Amino acid sequence: MELNDTIVALATPSGAGAIAVIRVSGPEAIEIVSSLFKARSRKILRDESTHTLHLGNITDDERVIDEVLVSIFHGPRSYTGENTTEISCHGSPYIQQEIIQLLIRKGCRSAEAGEFTLRAFLNGKMDLSQAEAVADLISSENQASHQLAMQQMRGGFSNEIQRLRKELLDFASLIELELDFAEEDVEFANRNEFRDLVSRIQKVLSRLIDSFAVGNVLKNGIPVAIVGEPNVGKSTLLNALLNEERAIVSEIAGTTRDTIEDEISIGGVGFRFIDTAGIRETVDVIEGMGIKKTFEKISQAQVVVYLVDSSELVAGLEDSGKNSPTSASENVRLGEVKIEIERIKNRFPQKPLIILANKADKLIESEISYLQSQIPGLLTISAKENLGVEELKMKLLNFVNTGELRNNNTIVTNSRHYNALLSALEEINKVQEGLNENLSGDLLAIDIRQALYHFGEITGEVTNDELLGNILANFCIGK
Amino acid sequence: MELNDTIVALATPSGAGAIAVIRVSGPEAIEIVSSLFKARSRKILRDESTHTLHLGNITDDERVIDEVLVSIFHGPRSYTGENTTEISCHGSPYIQQEIIQLLIRKGCRSAEAGEFTLRAFLNGKMDLSQAEAVADLISSENQASHQLAMQQMRGGFSNEIQRLRKELLDFASLIELELDFAEEDVEFANRNEFRDLVSRIQKVLSRLIDSFAVGNVLKNGIPVAIVGEPNVGKSTLLNALLNEERAIVSEIAGTTRDTIEDEISIGGVGFRFIDTAGIRETVDVIEGMGIKKTFEKISQAQVVVYLVDSSELVAGLEDSGKNSPTSASENVRLGEVKIEIERIKNRFPQKPLIILANKADKLIESEISYLQSQIPGLLTISAKENLGVEELKMKLLNFVNTGELRNNNTIVTNSRHYNALLSALEEINKVQEGLNENLSGDLLAIDIRQALYHFGEITGEVTNDELLGNILANFCIGK
Repeated sequence: MELNDTIVALATPSGAGAIAVIRVSGPEAIEIVSSLFKARSRKILRDESTHTLHLGNITDDERVIDEVLVSIFHGPRSYTGENTTEISCHGSPYIQQEIIQLLIRKGCRSAEAGEFTLRAFLNGKMDLSQAEAVADLISSENQASHQLAMQQMRGGFSNEIQRLRKELLDFASLIELELDFAEEDVEFANRNEFRDLVSRIQKVLSRLIDSFAVGNVLKNGIPVAIVGEPNVGKSTLLNALLNEERAIVSEIAGTTRDTIEDEISIGGVGFRFIDTAGIRETVDVIEGMGIKKTFEKISQAQVVVYLVDSSELVAGLEDSGKNSPTSASENVRLGEVKIEIERIKNRFPQKPLIILANKADKLIESEISYLQSQIPGLLTISAKENLGVEELKMKLLNFVNTGELRNNNTIVTNSRHYNALLSALEEINKVQEGLNENLSGDLLAIDIRQALYHFGEITGEVTNDELLGNILANFCIGK
Repeated sequence: MELNDTIVALATPSGAGAIAVIRVSGPEAIEIVSSLFKARSRKILRDESTHTLHLGNITDDERVIDEVLVSIFHGPRSYTGENTTEISCHGSPYIQQEIIQLLIRKGCRSAEAGEFTLRAFLNGKMDLSQAEAVADLISSENQASHQLAMQQMRGGFSNEIQRLRKELLDFASLIELELDFAEEDVEFANRNEFRDLVSRIQKVLSRLIDSFAVGNVLKNGIPVAIVGEPNVGKSTLLNALLNEERAIVSEIAGTTRDTIEDEISIGGVGFRFIDTAGIRETVDVIEGMGIKKTFEKISQAQVVVYLVDSSELVAGLEDSGKNSPTSASENVRLGEVKIEIERIKNRFPQKPLIILANKADKLIESEISYLQSQIPGLLTISAKENLGVEELKMKLLNFVNTGELRNNNTIVTNSRHYNALLSALEEINKVQEGLNENLSGDLLAIDIRQALYHFGEITGEVTNDELLGNILANFCIGK
């Protein structure tokens, strides 16, 4: 990929809209657009100041393609750090295409995915973890993932890494300096201070590594398994949860999301319902053939919702039985359900389990009390009548420890960073062992260099083309 | 619809992209955005000059929602003529929604479809026909419709109407002045000059009215019927025509159009293939049951393409027969085809007809010559091998008289304008009759007023809420 040419891409989503924005960046960005632009004011674009807006026509020789607004940014005061122009044109796909093709004919190159952000990184406008956060930000679908991405984009996380890296680098330099004076047996690097630093780094790394479990779940949505027999109301429950979200979204016309499907945002945290297509369609019984599939589903989840049809559990009960937990006439299905719940609890003792008795609108008060006495912690709802749905949401939210997020602590969400942090910690642990064993400076220096290398991977001070390629593969074109 | 409040809408297409633009217009547009915006430079937005760009954060109290670029436009130097800000944010649907909701909480109202353009019209930034052209421009899909919309948006058409309206208005005033001096029997309005004007107006109106047929077809695409038996290669032909277009479009990633389907742009002019879904699936024979359907399809088209499988026409021919048009061994299918072609020509003598012999790659030279001698004007192609497709395109294009378009003459494309022009011409004809019959000034004045009314309908000097509502219904939100 050449990086000293001028690139162009559509920056707004494709399709028709009121306006579209075409982004041009590179040494010739202002010059090329200036040559195609006739300002209403007759001013020449290339003579204008940075951060100004100009109304006029984009013309191909005599033919006027569109009336547009052009924004000018003089490097380094731009997103990429290069000269940049943004052409805000009418949002017809035809016009977008005509302008982009014209720019290409005049010497621009069609940008690769993420190339604007790559240039921003290479020009020192952001470090690598901040660049990665840009893609996360654009794909963020709820408050939690958005907040994580914003935090990372604003450098919260990499700033901490960079500070530690700097301190470690200083010690490394001192230790390497000792090597030059090896015969004189001096110690420039104070070993106690160094021990302190190593221990501080260990703590920070451990905290960041631990945060990954929370961060990953917050970023991708908390996986929830809804299990239960067919026709107990799983899809009605999902719709009840989804509809509310849909209502909020559709308040603002034009922002309807296609991907809402089975991801629900509750209190700003995303919940992802596992394999719900399957749940909706296939027979999914806890016993017999179904049990293996159910256990598989549960093992992928962080929270389990076990849904039963409450009317089945009280059917055929004597009036007296309903108030008596030891009634001889106990419903057969109720017995089965108790066994199934025990099975799940035994197999997954650590996994939060919510037991929901659906269709509770058909029950009378005494039946509800009876079921609650039979199954401790049972939550009665009516997905259809939207009763108890709010309580369920609160319960789901309570399982999520978002304390870290709320305290504005840095959280690691990126598996690349997670792996680099694990490797860095491993090396730092070696350094600590070396210190404890009074290892010689030259051997210590090797492990320190390795730790520094892994720190550098996160911020992009150590990088290579393959790594950059992998990161940019997640970007859309135009960013 | 209130028009002195501040409105907000997403201006870019919905969905995820590198960036999205949120537009705010109205008296409080700068003030409201200023209160939510923390500029990187610490400057205050409301103190900044018009047509400037500012980098900073949109914040909801302490929470940073996004790092954005804000453009400021002080009214009347904006699209709407009002104070306007455009917030260029990261293109996540979640962020778009959060910012729009925040703006609504701070006092903006969600804009109706076309409301920005309505305000531009009401504030005198454009006349009604220009406002209508904005929607046409956004939906333009090829060079011809785009050029028509641009021409109209730049006022070419309404300027002409407005000039004539002005002249007519001057005469109307003079004639009405005569009424005040009725007893003195004076003529302020020179009747000969007035006759000249009326005749000039008639000419212009007739030209504009005539241009509607061309304009409408250019704007909506020229309807083409492809007829022929099943399996002669209709869908292959459509794909051959479509693929080339697709190739051009996909050169620019992100601009792929969903609506390309059966509309093809050839030499910048749109061609629309009628009921091609039907053609592809249903049995569609010219004789018997099929003939009525085929004739219906042809009657909707401006151009007819009659497609046959050439291999069927030469099958079973003696070698000698192939060179002899009067051979006794003439293929039965060839005879049928000749009859079918005659039927179409008899029924639609004015309609351009292209006869295509497909699968010509399977023929030898002498077979092609033979068929061409049998069916005058026959074009041999191979849709599969992409042979002769360019010739077909040239032939289609030749049927379209785009002379008017190329000469930059004004062309009427809007049926509302067409109707207003027809009504205006009717009234002008009455005025002419009145002049010929030496009608009194007061009676002339009534017809002149009526003509002026219809002129005003086009430019929006005469308007009402219902009319505006109908026009704006074609707009997307944010424009």
